[in-house]
Amino acid sequence: MSVITIERKVLEKNDEIASQNRALLKENKIFTINLVSSPGSGKTSLLEKTFEHFSGKVKTAVIEGDVQTNLDAERVAKYNVPVVQIVTNGACHLEAKLVKDALESLNLKDVHLLFIENVGNLVCPAAYDLGEDMKVVIASTTEGDDKPLKYPRMFLNASVLLINKIDLLPYLDCSLEELKKNALSINPALKVFTVSGRTGKGVKEWCSWLESNIIK
Amino acid sequence: MSVITIERKVLEKNDEIASQNRALLKENKIFTINLVSSPGSGKTSLLEKTFEHFSGKVKTAVIEGDVQTNLDAERVAKYNVPVVQIVTNGACHLEAKLVKDALESLNLKDVHLLFIENVGNLVCPAAYDLGEDMKVVIASTTEGDDKPLKYPRMFLNASVLLINKIDLLPYLDCSLEELKKNALSINPALKVFTVSGRTGKGVKEWCSWLESNIIK
Repeated sequence: MSVITIERKVLEKNDEIASQNRALLKENKIFTINLVSSPGSGKTSLLEKTFEHFSGKVKTAVIEGDVQTNLDAERVAKYNVPVVQIVTNGACHLEAKLVKDALESLNLKDVHLLFIENVGNLVCPAAYDLGEDMKVVIASTTEGDDKPLKYPRMFLNASVLLINKIDLLPYLDCSLEELKKNALSINPALKVFTVSGRTGKGVKEWCSWLESNIIK
Repeated sequence: MSVITIERKVLEKNDEIASQNRALLKENKIFTINLVSSPGSGKTSLLEKTFEHFSGKVKTAVIEGDVQTNLDAERVAKYNVPVVQIVTNGACHLEAKLVKDALESLNLKDVHLLFIENVGNLVCPAAYDLGEDMKVVIASTTEGDDKPLKYPRMFLNASVLLINKIDLLPYLDCSLEELKKNALSINPALKVFTVSGRTGKGVKEWCSWLESNIIK
């Protein structure tokens, strides 16, 4: 049996469990976002700002995926948001089975919006369906404007692009227009928001869009 | 046959080819650096500054690893440095076999220092020996000071840490001391340099160290 056959079987099995997760989440009227990016693009900081905005308004929960440590889960827990930590012990992406196990630890009746913070990696998480409603990819201005061209699959599979760290633009050789253009050349349907997890700029627009279009 | 068995066999086969690469490189008196980091940490920018410093002094070549595009190879070629592009077509790391094939395209008699720029990924490239003399990991200040704790294997397997984008420190919530401390807590033997691929600060120290300690 070849490696490729094994890989296909792994993905088939993953997709099967992802479908079960999707059915369970739908049954509980939970909208689920699979949040993906490079390491250090600001997934957790943007989640913190999002929780501040939704505090007392939208019932939110988080599944945190990390190769090691529960540092991000500790940060998130400060916002009184239910959080389940998955440590992948070296694996570079979350799989549907890990999410299925994590869902068992959440009180699903009390969640309307679920964020799954994936492992920081622009490659492998693109291939693994977790049962989410949509993938949201974060690209930081500090990473340069060519990343959508270099890691196209992630931008192709995402529904929303959050361009983060726009407060740093004056100090970078990164063109916001070029970054948007490159992302839309890969996926013209991408909904794009420019934000700063540090200053909070743009977070209101992103959250308002979520509220009016997503959370029913 | 289980997935784990297959994975072990893939890694064993990889290590075997990596040993062949290592022997070939040693025979040709080439010092080889496997350059690893997250996407957008500044691998290519630091290479450009390194080539400027070594221009006319050290015979350098590059193997560029990318998921898609030859954008980095085009940037590097401007420095009159021999460059071979590997496009992994979706794979999230380089493997020894790909490097072996790339080595066949280089005139090894005319190279003293070889950089292999790996795919931007802090997880999987840590597991794949390519036949290099050492791994050099780049961590950008913009990624935050916790990355060594969250992606420990890469920092454990590297010999040198280049902390890049130090010109941005005044605008970030990142402590240089904390970043160094976290990296050294994972791997006390790490040689650490602070650099800026944008301003060139610290590049002289990094290159001088390479010249006096590495390139014989």
